[in-house]
Amino acid sequence: MDKADDPRPGETRRDPPRIGEAVVHFIGRCRTPYATRADCPRQGALDGPLCRLEIDPDWADALDGIERFARLDVLYWLDRSRRDLVTQNPGKDGALRGTFSLRSPVRPNPIGLARVALERREGAVLFVRGLDCIDGTPLVDIKPERCAYTPLAPAKAADRADG
Amino acid sequence: MDKADDPRPGETRRDPPRIGEAVVHFIGRCRTPYATRADCPRQGALDGPLCRLEIDPDWADALDGIERFARLDVLYWLDRSRRDLVTQNPGKDGALRGTFSLRSPVRPNPIGLARVALERREGAVLFVRGLDCIDGTPLVDIKPERCAYTPLAPAKAADRADG
Repeated sequence: MDKADDPRPGETRRDPPRIGEAVVHFIGRCRTPYATRADCPRQGALDGPLCRLEIDPDWADALDGIERFARLDVLYWLDRSRRDLVTQNPGKDGALRGTFSLRSPVRPNPIGLARVALERREGAVLFVRGLDCIDGTPLVDIKPERCAYTPLAPAKAADRADG
Repeated sequence: MDKADDPRPGETRRDPPRIGEAVVHFIGRCRTPYATRADCPRQGALDGPLCRLEIDPDWADALDGIERFARLDVLYWLDRSRRDLVTQNPGKDGALRGTFSLRSPVRPNPIGLARVALERREGAVLFVRGLDCIDGTPLVDIKPERCAYTPLAPAKAADRADG
């Protein structure tokens, strides 16, 4: 972590929660035009620059059928973020906000979530627009965007009860 | 894993990708009316039953300011899911689909993503509607829902360039 990662006035840090833990296996990498954090937009745009999601070639088959979705939810691991801030001062104005009320990359599990537009697939690579992360950021998951998605399996009683 | 986790005909498994890995620290637990996977709806509904997100009390301050958002993105760890299937047969009809073209809980990093309606906060507990997971599922992250969220920090050059 560099100097820019030092807490700002009033920000508080805490040890990690001790509920339990699990291991994430990165599935690939995000390739973007953003070399540094200063280059990254605060939020990606669906008409932003073309980026690539490069999947481990061993897992390429896991992309089969993805072309039918125009929008994807992409989860990635913001591996340069500190993880110990409970409150933050995003406006640098002394007004503190809880970490879970922000979409800041600084959070106990630094998982970024972007909705992207899928342009095309070439083997183990997806071409997308809408990423906001540094080039090389590890990929954690790719899912069809929730609003566009209808489960393929039949509805269950609990779906109907839920209305 | 129980018998229901056995691969169906045609489904293929693979070792985890070896790009790299990271540790997730669970931040709390989801409390839902669903005791088993058979009880869970395939997708939660914003007018579904009232559920709770119980955060580690040490991290309660990280919820400060969250009441201003009506919708949240919730990430949770589907700790009973197998992680090794590259293709799946969700309709049980022999039509195989890649794991990343599904929102199935079976995926290399079994992170569920739900959009929920926030009803109220009581200390380290959020009352929400829209979860679809088993009672006790570990929580990974909570963020303001992306569509409702405007960054508090000023826009950067890259935002403007991105349109």
